[in-house]
Amino acid sequence: MITLYSYWRSTAAYRVRIALNLKDIKHRIVPVDLIKDGGEQHQAAYREINPHGLVPALVTEAGEVLTQSLAIIEYLEEVHPDNPLLPEEPAARAQARAMALSIACDVHPLNNLRVLQYLRAQDWSDAQVDDWYQRWVRLGFTALEQQLDARECKYACCDHPTVADVCLVAQVYNARRFNVPLDAFPNIREIDGHCAGLSAFDRASPDNQPRGD
Amino acid sequence: MITLYSYWRSTAAYRVRIALNLKDIKHRIVPVDLIKDGGEQHQAAYREINPHGLVPALVTEAGEVLTQSLAIIEYLEEVHPDNPLLPEEPAARAQARAMALSIACDVHPLNNLRVLQYLRAQDWSDAQVDDWYQRWVRLGFTALEQQLDARECKYACCDHPTVADVCLVAQVYNARRFNVPLDAFPNIREIDGHCAGLSAFDRASPDNQPRGD
Repeated sequence: MITLYSYWRSTAAYRVRIALNLKDIKHRIVPVDLIKDGGEQHQAAYREINPHGLVPALVTEAGEVLTQSLAIIEYLEEVHPDNPLLPEEPAARAQARAMALSIACDVHPLNNLRVLQYLRAQDWSDAQVDDWYQRWVRLGFTALEQQLDARECKYACCDHPTVADVCLVAQVYNARRFNVPLDAFPNIREIDGHCAGLSAFDRASPDNQPRGD
Repeated sequence: MITLYSYWRSTAAYRVRIALNLKDIKHRIVPVDLIKDGGEQHQAAYREINPHGLVPALVTEAGEVLTQSLAIIEYLEEVHPDNPLLPEEPAARAQARAMALSIACDVHPLNNLRVLQYLRAQDWSDAQVDDWYQRWVRLGFTALEQQLDARECKYACCDHPTVADVCLVAQVYNARRFNVPLDAFPNIREIDGHCAGLSAFDRASPDNQPRGD
């Protein structure tokens, strides 16, 4: 069976959990605690699975280890094409991927645990770290909101959830956790609300995850 | 004809330039100066093309605007499958994408112009900014180097360049610009050297770009 190495609060692992659920792919989840004992992701056992020391990692039924949430989701899309996570037409697929990447590249990496830890180690105050966090979410969401304004569909790119929604929902969860005001983003909140009504998203939520010991 | 909005020193635009060349796709380049007058990417004319205010953006022959370098490269791969930038098998494709994403998500966004500008505005010294820059390159390259050690092929993932090499070469150029020591990364330097011998990479190099007025 497919194994997903996951941490309940990891935005990137959350994306893959949603994708696995949307595609109804049987899998087991192995928690990797990013906090306990300085982080299990840095220990030799996990580094052998993913030398980058990041979650998620997915081990296929054939034993291949895949890393990077968006690469894993593309793999799932190719191997399990049912319940597609991309639109059909190349330009529409590019738009969906671009929305996903605008979160996965331009928002999330700046606000990842290891980055916030580094900034705190530079004696940044909580207020400075909060400003930093909120700045990149606000910049990314402001542009996304403008792009979503033109849509005539229920979700971000079409009338079924795609990789864009997967990334959006995980980032919105994280933004709420860091108290980023979302009032200026009605499209994003609407899409997040549609997704919240789907069991695949709900079961993947951090609030519904095993948290290890 | 395809139009690419590009900045000579943008790592992300550099990736798309390489991909267009590798696939031998005719295109014209429109320079967007990220420095002059506070950055042309922030001006209304460019924001209409890409609300995120980032390069690259690609306008297709049909007039569709595509953003995010990796989404653009996937589009080019789907529409122009010759000279593939991904391996054939799903798991191998996932490995190539994961290497590309480990640079595009975990290294590059932390060292992007806008982030370095923000850190300098927080009164970080040049030495602090250099430490920051070098830290994320070193972390990403160390893990990549370990992954590349197992390969039995000329390039990162197979015997032709893929999206992994495209991202790697652009990041190595940037790392050299910021004086990151690369001695500890023989696999990365070897692959970069192989790519440097290809006209598609050479023509895409920042050193061979128009720089606007």
